Amino acid sequence: MNLILLSPSDLIPNTSRVLLTGRRQAHVREVHRAAAGDVLIVGMENGKVGEGRILRLTAREVEMEVRFLSDPPAKIPVILCVALMRPPVFKRVLQTAATMGVEEIHVIHTQRVEKSFWQSTAIKGVSIQEQLVLGLEQARDTVIPGVMFHKRFKPFVEDVLPGLLKGRQGIVADPAGDLIRGHTLNSKDELSVCPRKVLLVGPEGGFIPHEITKFRDAGCRVAGLGPRILRVETAVTSLLARSA
Amino acid sequence: MNLILLSPSDLIPNTSRVLLTGRRQAHVREVHRAAAGDVLIVGMENGKVGEGRILRLTAREVEMEVRFLSDPPAKIPVILCVALMRPPVFKRVLQTAATMGVEEIHVIHTQRVEKSFWQSTAIKGVSIQEQLVLGLEQARDTVIPGVMFHKRFKPFVEDVLPGLLKGRQGIVADPAGDLIRGHTLNSKDELSVCPRKVLLVGPEGGFIPHEITKFRDAGCRVAGLGPRILRVETAVTSLLARSA
Repeated sequence: MNLILLSPSDLIPNTSRVLLTGRRQAHVREVHRAAAGDVLIVGMENGKVGEGRILRLTAREVEMEVRFLSDPPAKIPVILCVALMRPPVFKRVLQTAATMGVEEIHVIHTQRVEKSFWQSTAIKGVSIQEQLVLGLEQARDTVIPGVMFHKRFKPFVEDVLPGLLKGRQGIVADPAGDLIRGHTLNSKDELSVCPRKVLLVGPEGGFIPHEITKFRDAGCRVAGLGPRILRVETAVTSLLARSA
Repeated sequence: MNLILLSPSDLIPNTSRVLLTGRRQAHVREVHRAAAGDVLIVGMENGKVGEGRILRLTAREVEMEVRFLSDPPAKIPVILCVALMRPPVFKRVLQTAATMGVEEIHVIHTQRVEKSFWQSTAIKGVSIQEQLVLGLEQARDTVIPGVMFHKRFKPFVEDVLPGLLKGRQGIVADPAGDLIRGHTLNSKDELSVCPRKVLLVGPEGGFIPHEITKFRDAGCRVAGLGPRILRVETAVTSLLARSA
C-alpha cells in the first residue's frame, strides 16, 4: 500500500479529517508501523493525491488530517479486453491492470473459457473492487477503472466492440498470430503506432478461428507475441508494458 | 504444457522411444486427453524440439516414439538479478523468467529482503527446477536457465556483478530512479540501446541508497519505470517485455 485510498465516507463531516478502521487501520499500524505525527501518502477515490498526518492511532482506529495536493498519474490510453480466466489468475490480472493504469477492462466469454468460471465469487462486485483498490494503492493512483462483463461473445463483438474501437487501434494478441498473418508484436514500434488502443487477450489455449475472424471483421489487427507462448497473465503485463 | 520436456533418462536405451510416468503422463492423459496415435510437441532438456507419437497409453504410463526437429526459441540476451522475495511470488517470477527466455537468474540478498525468505523451501534445488521446467514447457523452450543465489550483498556486487557486466549494460530498476537521476525507462528505446543487459530489480520497498551507490560504482544505470510503482513481479515482466 504505497497510498491509502480514501472514500468520501471516510471524512468526518465538516472537517479535513478521516477516521479509518479495518484493513487500512491495520496496515498503517502493522506495515507502516506509523505513530501519531507521521505523514503518509493518501488519495481520494477518483480524486487527488495528497498526504495524511496521523493525529491519533489506537488499536481499532486511526485519525488523520488530510490535504490533497496533486493529480494521480495519467492512465495509459488502453482498453483491455480479456477472456475470463481462473479466479486466482483473474484477481492478479485485475490488480495488475489497475496498477499499470488501464482505462477500462472488459471481461468476455469465448469458446475456450470454462463456463464454471462465470460462477466464481471472483467476478462479484465486492471482490473486483477489492482487487482494483489493491492495484491502485500499489501504483498511487486513485481512479478506479470500469470493469464490464460480457457473458455472450456475439453481442460483445458485434454491438460493444465497434464502439470501443472508435478512434482506437484494436490489437488481438494470439499465439497463432504470427502464423496467421506473419505478423508479430516483437517489434516495439508495433504497439506505438496508434497510442489509443483496445488490446484483446484470449484464454489459455487462445481464441478459436471464428472469434479471430469476428475481431478482424470489426477492424482489429491480429498479432502474435513472438515465438514464446506466454501465460495470459504474462501476456497482459507484457502488452501493457509495451503500450505504456 | 505446450511442450513435454524430456530428459535423457526418459529414453528407453538404444531406441527412439520414451516412457513417461507421473506428472507428464497425467498431463498427457487428463489435459491433452490424448490417445494412441496422437502426436504431441516434445523437447529434450537443453536440446532440440520435436514431436512424440503416442504408441501406448495406460493408467500409469505413456510410451512415445520421438524425433527431434528444430532448435528451441532463442533466449533473450538478459541476465536477471532479483532480490529474494516471498516464496509464492518467487515461484511465479522463476516461471515467468524461464518462459520469457532469460539466460541466467541471480537471486541476491539486500537490506530490505526479509531474512526468513532464505529459509524457504522455494529456494531448494528441486523446487526451483520444477518452476523452471513449468516455465519452459509453457514457452516451448528446452534450455534451463542457470539460477544462482548470493546470500551476501557485498561479495555479489563487488566480485560477481563486474563479471556479469562484461559486454553488457547494467540497468537498475528502482522506484526512486526517476527522482535520483531524472531518468526513466518509460521510453521504449531506453532498453534497446545495448541489447545485452543485466537487469537488477530490488525487493518490495526498493534498494537502499548504499546499494544503489554500489551498483552505480559497478557501472550500472539507475532508472525508474515511470510514475507508477509496480510490484516486483509486474516490474520483472515489464522489463523483460521491453527487452525482448
